Amino acid sequence: MPRTPILIDCDPGQDDAVMLMLAMNAPELEILGITAVGGNVPLAWTEANARRICELMGRRDLPVFAGCDRPLVRPLVTAAHVHGEDGLMGLTLPAPTMVLQRQHAVDFIVETLRARDDVVLCPVGPLTNIAMALTKAPDIARRVRRIVLMGGAIHGGNVTPVAEYNIYADPDAAAVVFASGAPIVMIGLDCTHQALIGPDQIAALKRAGTTAAKATVALFDFPERWRPHLYGGRVGFPVHDACVVGWLLDPQAFAGRDCRVDVETASELTLGQTVVDWHGKHGGAPNAQVIRDVDAPRFLDELLRRLSRP
Amino acid sequence: MPRTPILIDCDPGQDDAVMLMLAMNAPELEILGITAVGGNVPLAWTEANARRICELMGRRDLPVFAGCDRPLVRPLVTAAHVHGEDGLMGLTLPAPTMVLQRQHAVDFIVETLRARDDVVLCPVGPLTNIAMALTKAPDIARRVRRIVLMGGAIHGGNVTPVAEYNIYADPDAAAVVFASGAPIVMIGLDCTHQALIGPDQIAALKRAGTTAAKATVALFDFPERWRPHLYGGRVGFPVHDACVVGWLLDPQAFAGRDCRVDVETASELTLGQTVVDWHGKHGGAPNAQVIRDVDAPRFLDELLRRLSRP
Amino acid sequence: MPRTPILIDCDPGQDDAVMLMLAMNAPELEILGITAVGGNVPLAWTEANARRICELMGRRDLPVFAGCDRPLVRPLVTAAHVHGEDGLMGLTLPAPTMVLQRQHAVDFIVETLRARDDVVLCPVGPLTNIAMALTKAPDIARRVRRIVLMGGAIHGGNVTPVAEYNIYADPDAAAVVFASGAPIVMIGLDCTHQALIGPDQIAALKRAGTTAAKATVALFDFPERWRPHLYGGRVGFPVHDACVVGWLLDPQAFAGRDCRVDVETASELTLGQTVVDWHGKHGGAPNAQVIRDVDAPRFLDELLRRLSRP
Amino acid sequence: MPRTPILIDCDPGQDDAVMLMLAMNAPELEILGITAVGGNVPLAWTEANARRICELMGRRDLPVFAGCDRPLVRPLVTAAHVHGEDGLMGLTLPAPTMVLQRQHAVDFIVETLRARDDVVLCPVGPLTNIAMALTKAPDIARRVRRIVLMGGAIHGGNVTPVAEYNIYADPDAAAVVFASGAPIVMIGLDCTHQALIGPDQIAALKRAGTTAAKATVALFDFPERWRPHLYGGRVGFPVHDACVVGWLLDPQAFAGRDCRVDVETASELTLGQTVVDWHGKHGGAPNAQVIRDVDAPRFLDELLRRLSRP
Repeated sequence: MPRTPILIDCDPGQDDAVMLMLAMNAPELEILGITAVGGNVPLAWTEANARRICELMGRRDLPVFAGCDRPLVRPLVTAAHVHGEDGLMGLTLPAPTMVLQRQHAVDFIVETLRARDDVVLCPVGPLTNIAMALTKAPDIARRVRRIVLMGGAIHGGNVTPVAEYNIYADPDAAAVVFASGAPIVMIGLDCTHQALIGPDQIAALKRAGTTAAKATVALFDFPERWRPHLYGGRVGFPVHDACVVGWLLDPQAFAGRDCRVDVETASELTLGQTVVDWHGKHGGAPNAQVIRDVDAPRFLDELLRRLSRP
Repeated sequence: MPRTPILIDCDPGQDDAVMLMLAMNAPELEILGITAVGGNVPLAWTEANARRICELMGRRDLPVFAGCDRPLVRPLVTAAHVHGEDGLMGLTLPAPTMVLQRQHAVDFIVETLRARDDVVLCPVGPLTNIAMALTKAPDIARRVRRIVLMGGAIHGGNVTPVAEYNIYADPDAAAVVFASGAPIVMIGLDCTHQALIGPDQIAALKRAGTTAAKATVALFDFPERWRPHLYGGRVGFPVHDACVVGWLLDPQAFAGRDCRVDVETASELTLGQTVVDWHGKHGGAPNAQVIRDVDAPRFLDELLRRLSRP
Repeated sequence: MPRTPILIDCDPGQDDAVMLMLAMNAPELEILGITAVGGNVPLAWTEANARRICELMGRRDLPVFAGCDRPLVRPLVTAAHVHGEDGLMGLTLPAPTMVLQRQHAVDFIVETLRARDDVVLCPVGPLTNIAMALTKAPDIARRVRRIVLMGGAIHGGNVTPVAEYNIYADPDAAAVVFASGAPIVMIGLDCTHQALIGPDQIAALKRAGTTAAKATVALFDFPERWRPHLYGGRVGFPVHDACVVGWLLDPQAFAGRDCRVDVETASELTLGQTVVDWHGKHGGAPNAQVIRDVDAPRFLDELLRRLSRP
Repeated sequence: MPRTPILIDCDPGQDDAVMLMLAMNAPELEILGITAVGGNVPLAWTEANARRICELMGRRDLPVFAGCDRPLVRPLVTAAHVHGEDGLMGLTLPAPTMVLQRQHAVDFIVETLRARDDVVLCPVGPLTNIAMALTKAPDIARRVRRIVLMGGAIHGGNVTPVAEYNIYADPDAAAVVFASGAPIVMIGLDCTHQALIGPDQIAALKRAGTTAAKATVALFDFPERWRPHLYGGRVGFPVHDACVVGWLLDPQAFAGRDCRVDVETASELTLGQTVVDWHGKHGGAPNAQVIRDVDAPRFLDELLRRLSRP
């Protein structure tokens, strides 16, 4: 069976770590490389954390690249209060020994997308590296098979009442990506807030006891974060970025539609909001498939099954 | 029983008309005056329509005042495509013969709020008149008992993906009102989209056959507007402004919470959005009670009962 | 000789005080009333200072009105660091005993402009009162003979590198005024920085010894403010607002041209800038006569002559 | 004598062409490479024009690189109405035959600035390539000896009343450059409007008859563009970009001061304005040496002398 070649751009980050482990445990996917960007924590941590996860999972063969350490135009705002100063709060891993590639992440992205036309780009952090690649090499917008990204929301945010972190952190980059003409699947908070790692999942992962399962438990077993009022009464914590891999493995578990998405870059109050014309009432041409819903039990079962695989 | 003294600021407007009729049929309320503002249709229509409804309902005793014909800072954008060029599409009424008061609406608002301290202000159009009154006479912010307004939304809009018409039409005025310190109840689209006049209500109103019922049927019997996908699968059309009177008569039928609300005035993309910190996560001091839900059957029963009263 | 009827809207303020004294000493002008606005210092000071100057000049007959105490949309930013906490730094005057008119300044402006069609409106503070009047009574835009205002600049500011105080303090009001269609003469910093009260003028005023001359000396004899590098090498301090009266008395001493003027209201960085298309290259229809130059000796001679008149 | 190593980033463009010829005729300068950016005309023209000028001047040895074809975040707005569709209106040159380097301009800039620490970067187009290099490789901000750029203005613009083309075309990139901490010399319109190629210069260049002189005549002999009212009464057309080389060769002919410069990116009205705190009154730390004046005869003499050199 042919595997889907993917390129992961991430800022690990707790949910990024689970996303990486999930992808590594999916034989349907061929990870061409992992690029890191400054985001949840500074670049020095995100690139090292990407390597840490590779080593933890026995995947020292995967090339890891460092990209941009700051947004296109604005200073970096991290989410270290969520992910911990080191980005992997709860999971202590030794300093990585595998090499960081010398090539810049942006160049690796461009080179990879120019080398073949079947690559799915999976950005799960601020979109700085992706926007840089698109501006440096506009032709890749036509060469990428699909960009499946975690970011934004139809309704509601997590950094402000209306903005999700990945888009808020580099709204200008997001605007570039959404205006690029590349085929985009946007998985935002509407979806990710439906699929939580809660007590049942923690218990199952504890029972499984694999490396990936244990690491996920370490990263997510924080009951004090289970605030059901934020997640429609559901108990647990969202595993945002992992939904991107979930969609790749089982798109039928997700539901959305083609919409116009515009990113707010001009106002402080609404900065980084993804304005989604969900009902198609306001006339802009659709530029993304916006995922709103997920069959959470189905996705979580798949997630647990993969993380529990030896 | 003491009646609640109210002052209605409106831009009729189909749902404004129903709101006025509902208020006139509520003996619990004492309508001190009706002020008109440019909004759904230009001021020349809204003030005349207010008088038309008074005459239709046999309330030539109510004083009607004309206010501002344009927003504070921007040109007027009407909603004539919804309400018809004359604002009362479906309901043909003769030109009013009762007098339009000579006093300016803004002055009547100021004077009334200074004369007594128990007045509830009910704005159901763009907030231009109210902002003008607050800027001309800042003391009224402390004298008004409550401002119960129809406008805004926690999530989603009707003019743009994120902005509701009344706030969008004069976002600067809305910003003034929400910053004024006056006690505000905001009834937005989240709520009003739950209470529709649909086939059952139309049928009941036809049976009732009163003046108010017949007028409401004329204004709302447009099945081509019943787009359930916009209203959570519900069939019918929202009677937005009437919810304000609904809340006055039966606040227990509504549910909301005290929140911080900020109005977007700086960006074209999100202009007029009410940014509501529903979860109280982002630190601004609450400045409004934001109504999100309504017991729709209860409210609609009350609405029908009142409109069907001879 | 028929006198020009004027209405002065001001926020005294040191240069406002000189402007008022100059106007009072000009038999060519008929002051219909003085309206005060919050600006250089809060409204409680500006309206009282207007009355103080009337009393100082023996003009208790002039009606003084209080207007808005805050800008249309934003909080008030004063210039008390320039004018002193009481607005008349250097000139100590007793509390005024003449009455403050009960009518609101905005209503007096509207009423006056509706009563006759030859009134020149002279705003020399933030344009809040004027914008309020125009929004409340749009017809006055066609009835006012001319609005001669002090504010803005073609190049350079005094509150920020690009914004002049009067416009910066209420940019939204300024936008309303410049969009109103009323005939406007804008006298900005380009002009007022050319006409300074410096050592020569101070000396002459001291010799004159009239009430107005002595008051002007008290308000302007601050050599530590003589920063020639800010004023093209000229020594002294600008008497901004007085230029408005200067123009009324002797427009030939001033030079300008009809231009498009747009006011920045959207960006914090450039807030309140008057963007003037001086060369008419960029296509907007002219909406103001923008004064750039003044024959300073001629204006200053006139100023001194008038202030020195017993 | 050691030569100053420079790297030219340009968008030829008529004045860019003169700038390139001037630099090529300056033995004091060592041109390490020429990078092209989309600007005055699209990238396909600017990179080819850079090569055309190299070939015209017999400098096929100079490496020319193509960079970004569009601004960081916004669509490209060209100035083809000034420079002609092909960017070199008036000068017809054959298609270039020398090779375009395969390396991307951004990478060449980064590589060059990392290889040595004495390079002066000379951007005379939109700052897209420079901002991309700074974002991709932030360390170069500390390695570049100086960035001497043509762009912006203290007062006045040429695309809008307040914005100069190079900054207007990519204001976000300009904001990145001015915030980078690199040592910047900004030569804006205040300076370049003082040094015009007018009838005297055209005549002298015609007499000289060298390749560079003839090409400059071809590009600048458009008397219909001599609009003295735009240039302080001076007759001729500005040779903007050449001032950058002028400054490198003879900084004493220029005068300026260290200032805070902020770039407007949030408002359409003032987009791309360089807000310069010339008097240092408003508190921001200086981030550029802003050149306001030039000894025009001295610079023009030097320009003519160099262009007339065989």
